[in-house]
Amino acid sequence: MSDASHRVVVVGGGFGGLFATRALRRAPVRVTLLDRVNHHLFQPLLYQVATGILSEGEIAPPLRSVLRRQRNVGVELAEVSGFDLDRRTVTAVRPDGGGFELPYDSLIVSAGAGQSYFGHDQFSRWAPGMKTINDALELRGRILGAFEIAELEQDPEKRRAWLTFAVVGGGPTGVEIAGQIAELSRRVLSDDFREIDPRNARVMLFDGGEEVLAEFGDKLSAKGKMGLERLGIEVHTSSTVVDIDGDGVVVESAGERRRIDAQTKIWAAGVQASPLARRLADASGAECDRAGRVSVLPDCSLPGHPEVFAIGDMMALDRLPGVAEVAMQQGIHAATTIKRRLRAEETKPFRYRDLGSMATISRFRAIVSFRGIRLSGFLGWLAWLFVHLAFLTGFKNRFSTVLHWAITFTGGGRPERTITMQQIIGRVAIGEAGGRPFLLSLADDEEHAGPTDTEPLG
Amino acid sequence: MSDASHRVVVVGGGFGGLFATRALRRAPVRVTLLDRVNHHLFQPLLYQVATGILSEGEIAPPLRSVLRRQRNVGVELAEVSGFDLDRRTVTAVRPDGGGFELPYDSLIVSAGAGQSYFGHDQFSRWAPGMKTINDALELRGRILGAFEIAELEQDPEKRRAWLTFAVVGGGPTGVEIAGQIAELSRRVLSDDFREIDPRNARVMLFDGGEEVLAEFGDKLSAKGKMGLERLGIEVHTSSTVVDIDGDGVVVESAGERRRIDAQTKIWAAGVQASPLARRLADASGAECDRAGRVSVLPDCSLPGHPEVFAIGDMMALDRLPGVAEVAMQQGIHAATTIKRRLRAEETKPFRYRDLGSMATISRFRAIVSFRGIRLSGFLGWLAWLFVHLAFLTGFKNRFSTVLHWAITFTGGGRPERTITMQQIIGRVAIGEAGGRPFLLSLADDEEHAGPTDTEPLG
Repeated sequence: MSDASHRVVVVGGGFGGLFATRALRRAPVRVTLLDRVNHHLFQPLLYQVATGILSEGEIAPPLRSVLRRQRNVGVELAEVSGFDLDRRTVTAVRPDGGGFELPYDSLIVSAGAGQSYFGHDQFSRWAPGMKTINDALELRGRILGAFEIAELEQDPEKRRAWLTFAVVGGGPTGVEIAGQIAELSRRVLSDDFREIDPRNARVMLFDGGEEVLAEFGDKLSAKGKMGLERLGIEVHTSSTVVDIDGDGVVVESAGERRRIDAQTKIWAAGVQASPLARRLADASGAECDRAGRVSVLPDCSLPGHPEVFAIGDMMALDRLPGVAEVAMQQGIHAATTIKRRLRAEETKPFRYRDLGSMATISRFRAIVSFRGIRLSGFLGWLAWLFVHLAFLTGFKNRFSTVLHWAITFTGGGRPERTITMQQIIGRVAIGEAGGRPFLLSLADDEEHAGPTDTEPLG
Repeated sequence: MSDASHRVVVVGGGFGGLFATRALRRAPVRVTLLDRVNHHLFQPLLYQVATGILSEGEIAPPLRSVLRRQRNVGVELAEVSGFDLDRRTVTAVRPDGGGFELPYDSLIVSAGAGQSYFGHDQFSRWAPGMKTINDALELRGRILGAFEIAELEQDPEKRRAWLTFAVVGGGPTGVEIAGQIAELSRRVLSDDFREIDPRNARVMLFDGGEEVLAEFGDKLSAKGKMGLERLGIEVHTSSTVVDIDGDGVVVESAGERRRIDAQTKIWAAGVQASPLARRLADASGAECDRAGRVSVLPDCSLPGHPEVFAIGDMMALDRLPGVAEVAMQQGIHAATTIKRRLRAEETKPFRYRDLGSMATISRFRAIVSFRGIRLSGFLGWLAWLFVHLAFLTGFKNRFSTVLHWAITFTGGGRPERTITMQQIIGRVAIGEAGGRPFLLSLADDEEHAGPTDTEPLG
């Protein structure tokens, strides 16, 4: 820890917090990075953990290990519970339950966003989202478990439901997970079963809007849809999922509702800012928008508190998109602003440099949009591969991991197919039998709200 | 599936069941392999998953994928609940709760063994064993979490307890996990913390017997002990652990009891055969020994039922050790016996060929005992590496995994340090906060039996 007297507290070790911390590495400050989990998460590849391509360690390096050489930072595993902006302290809870207060001179809050079910939290049991490592392991167990159960099921209708996968939400996350489930069933698992043909699995993608991947613009969006359909994925646009239960989903399209039996449901439809955004808003008098994000000033600070920054998915500014790039650049911006102030230099407002968007459709197909350049197909995929490899090497600097991943992904194997004990909240749960875990089904004993309203969801 | 009419049911996809199945690949039979989990487990490397070297997928390939090319076998994910040896059927439960009956002409049961706490099942909450992938992930979370909590703990005595690791049992499993915890603390984590020095972690190994690794004989056992002590591990022989609770262990040695504060406890002291051994004994009139293993005839079959074989850790024969080698050779033997019968040839009793024992002490040290040849130190480690690599390649045939593993293990990194949501039964549990998981400590609210008796444990 350095002897510098300016104390910076960074909340959250995601893209925003990590880049802010790194950008302070040569500054005369002492940094404390607080996170609830021990790892940074390379969220854009989470869907690959959910489909058995990568292990969790490969996209979630420990924060300590990433920051090992940066001597002016301490990492603490703790959950932030509140802020006192006047006294300039953060209150937090340690893993063993003890609370503590941490004083700061500058504060950077980058707590991100969680899944939002738009008021239908009961859906979460049946349709997990994909925001954390545990989400991904839960989904991995459900997806692979569905094929296992289908293999044993004798009733053709029920078997069909176990082989039906409903993905809600047609943004990059929904598209990528749908694409990988299709690849799993068409290619990876195609020879593994005796009673079922995994290639017959039905992968359905629902979106309430008129197109999938809308943010890429009409042309790329259409190419993305074509790519998905070539993989045999049923793409249902203008189709709103209005209910989800253990056995399937209810979809509303053109005023009509129909029920689809699907044992595996995945939620990729919406996000909600961390509750810490609301705390910051209440403490500073700033506004929160519908997605729970706190409005910040043009330099990402809070009104009346130039020493407090809110960055990334939890803040609202200039209709910036909720992508990793924004969080990274804002992290660097907040760090720069702190450094300039320490040198009594003028500070600047945040300016986002759009480095483009990407979504991968299948193994060798992706779409990329970058400053008027639009790539699709294999060329898009090469660009996607390059950027992901560059990032992974950039922050992990571990040649072996990248090598391993590149071999696995291009080779098409799925090394990570272990069903672990994550499935505790779903339909498929783990029991103990003789000391060894065993997959067991949960009875549908919990109350479940039926189709209630017509609020748009998908 | 082949058209052959002879039906073989194999229960358990461990070393015994997998080798039996593979040995039947060209036989005119139809094989059904039943297991509760979807993967084979390379148990000898489980301790590497627990200490972050390997991911679970690297030692637990899906059974389906291992057996993909063997067309005469079907894999079913189901838990066997009983046997009717007269009607020649197995009853089992599918993951979704449905029961079914499976008829056989030959039956091979290889259900293995679970952890035994010698009647002190309350210890399991505080000192997980290491028999399954979930055990290993649970331990990984506890071991890495202990360093995290120590970093935040202000009270020096409590911090000491979080940095104390008690391993109960001085067989290969206990020795290997103790060695890897020491390497983690001495080497891997040494630079990652600011408040604590992980190198000060105390790793204690307890065994009730007079020496660790007793099965290797005096000379190697002494070398093993020396290797452990060189890593800074405190080896306590003739020391019986008589109680375990949340805060530590009570050890009895030379008639005296003392309490040691240790937040992390690992149980590697004993095994108990699968309850299916008792079911087979009851159904056939065979005996069960104290460890719950069913006594088999010299050809591994049950008395009065030459078509039923019990193999591996769940059977008792000629004081054979409970090692993977025995299970593999018995699996092949049972398969050979079935094939010989189908060809009306004479069958033979099982003969164990001792291929030696191995235990690795640290990164470059292992001890190996093989037909009078005794290796230790670096030479032992090379032999150990060779055999493990040969096995991994043998059954997985995946160059990239082996390469990845070899790089990681010799390079000394720990790619898998994610704390996942396995810690549901321990002191450190996961809560949900805003949709993201968070480490929380469990209150000591469950009843716990105090030190009650003096039964030997360690």
